[in-house]
Amino acid sequence: MTTPHASLGLAPNVSDPSLYRAIPALDQDGRPLNLFAINERMLTVFLNGREVVTVMTVGDNARYLALGFLLNQRMLEPGDTVRSVDYAPEDGTILVRADTADRLETGGKRRIHTSGCAVGTLFGGVMESLDEIRLDPRPRLRTSWLRSLGRGIDTLDSLHLKTGSVHRCVLCQEDRLLAYVEDVGRHNAIDALAGYMYLNGIVPTDKILYTTGRLTSEVVIKTVIMGVPILVSRGGFTALGVELAHKAGLTLIGRCRGRYFQALAGQERILFDAAPPRGA
Amino acid sequence: MTTPHASLGLAPNVSDPSLYRAIPALDQDGRPLNLFAINERMLTVFLNGREVVTVMTVGDNARYLALGFLLNQRMLEPGDTVRSVDYAPEDGTILVRADTADRLETGGKRRIHTSGCAVGTLFGGVMESLDEIRLDPRPRLRTSWLRSLGRGIDTLDSLHLKTGSVHRCVLCQEDRLLAYVEDVGRHNAIDALAGYMYLNGIVPTDKILYTTGRLTSEVVIKTVIMGVPILVSRGGFTALGVELAHKAGLTLIGRCRGRYFQALAGQERILFDAAPPRGA
Repeated sequence: MTTPHASLGLAPNVSDPSLYRAIPALDQDGRPLNLFAINERMLTVFLNGREVVTVMTVGDNARYLALGFLLNQRMLEPGDTVRSVDYAPEDGTILVRADTADRLETGGKRRIHTSGCAVGTLFGGVMESLDEIRLDPRPRLRTSWLRSLGRGIDTLDSLHLKTGSVHRCVLCQEDRLLAYVEDVGRHNAIDALAGYMYLNGIVPTDKILYTTGRLTSEVVIKTVIMGVPILVSRGGFTALGVELAHKAGLTLIGRCRGRYFQALAGQERILFDAAPPRGA
Repeated sequence: MTTPHASLGLAPNVSDPSLYRAIPALDQDGRPLNLFAINERMLTVFLNGREVVTVMTVGDNARYLALGFLLNQRMLEPGDTVRSVDYAPEDGTILVRADTADRLETGGKRRIHTSGCAVGTLFGGVMESLDEIRLDPRPRLRTSWLRSLGRGIDTLDSLHLKTGSVHRCVLCQEDRLLAYVEDVGRHNAIDALAGYMYLNGIVPTDKILYTTGRLTSEVVIKTVIMGVPILVSRGGFTALGVELAHKAGLTLIGRCRGRYFQALAGQERILFDAAPPRGA
């Protein structure tokens, strides 16, 4: 049983046939199968007339993705004025015009290709800029919320159920799901949530990011720049991801499955209030 | 029980302590855990004095990775003469000098950030160059090999078992594992195998690539450029990955787990010789 998205501010339109394609296949015994595969499209982002990046994406959150990418690269800052966002789906281009001073010039020189799923990209200087950021230490994470969030995510109607091969990323508050993005790249899903939060004036400090992807340096950096103090994943983690989380004061939870998880950084925010398993 | 790597031409050195780090953590009930996390390092590749890309990688196959990346981007062609490869681990740089004509100039203009895990990057023109490639239709894939390969991979001593959070990519021939690479990015793992094949003069036409990552456009493009006619994954697939496989005549197998799989393209190469399950 899946749940509709009525309570969510953002969710994929699973009935949009432009997001996937039927794939005729054979199974292990040579019998025909009818499967669905997610579409992967090029989207090229321009900022003030300059080409910044081309990502491969599902494409259903192009505006949020473009703005969130620029924000998470610090080419755009939350205080900047965005003049226009023009998306041309047929060309796969999105043109952002904003008053950004000359930040692009300094940030755009060096691209770091990260361990993110579906190719994240960080531009030189972003990692160094983490030195200035210390996340608010006050927000708390109750372990009882994690089980509820995991269940909630699994019962959502999703492209994941229809096609597989997408990463899921959810903006949460306490035990509630607020916004849900799926993409072939988990860094795209996070960027799209950043754009959604920016355009809707959503405060990050009392939120949780829940992702299905691994906790690499890239994903940690994006979360810290977004100002979200708690990052939870079903997947594992890298040493650099954990190190950067410690530096910024991010609570980092990996391998969150059922009632199990591994708390890797920022453990002081956690209240261990989940009921122990029956019989324990 | 894990198996040593004696029969493999290339495999991670799982006892090398520079590849991972101990991470103190807490479990779901607040009890201390001692975990290991894989190291993720920056490696910047230069070709003929020009900076090409910075990838995040485990770093144990830097030379193979750099050459394989350049080959899979078609910035370097198999016929080019490589003059030198200078790796400076302390700086995270690798300098390749080769007689490449002016290929870099035309290929380097546009970077496409793909759906690959751990950030793949394709430079403009690579996708178009697939139009010229038709893989040799003669090699065959016996379904009985797939089960053996899957078992073989799971019993190898690996960083995957030690730390998780790596993708595995294996070069195979029939039911034998030839070379095994693990990396935080599955595109890095494939590139490293490409570099290994190039430096050791390994013919691609009778080989199989077996990966744990999703079959996105990026992974399919790299396999086709390498000239390997069969690509197998435990993971799912995107519509563009399947489309490109059809175009190039690549046999594409997804969700290969135990005796199950889904054959998505190039099915004419498959001989369905695996024994049916008992009781069927």
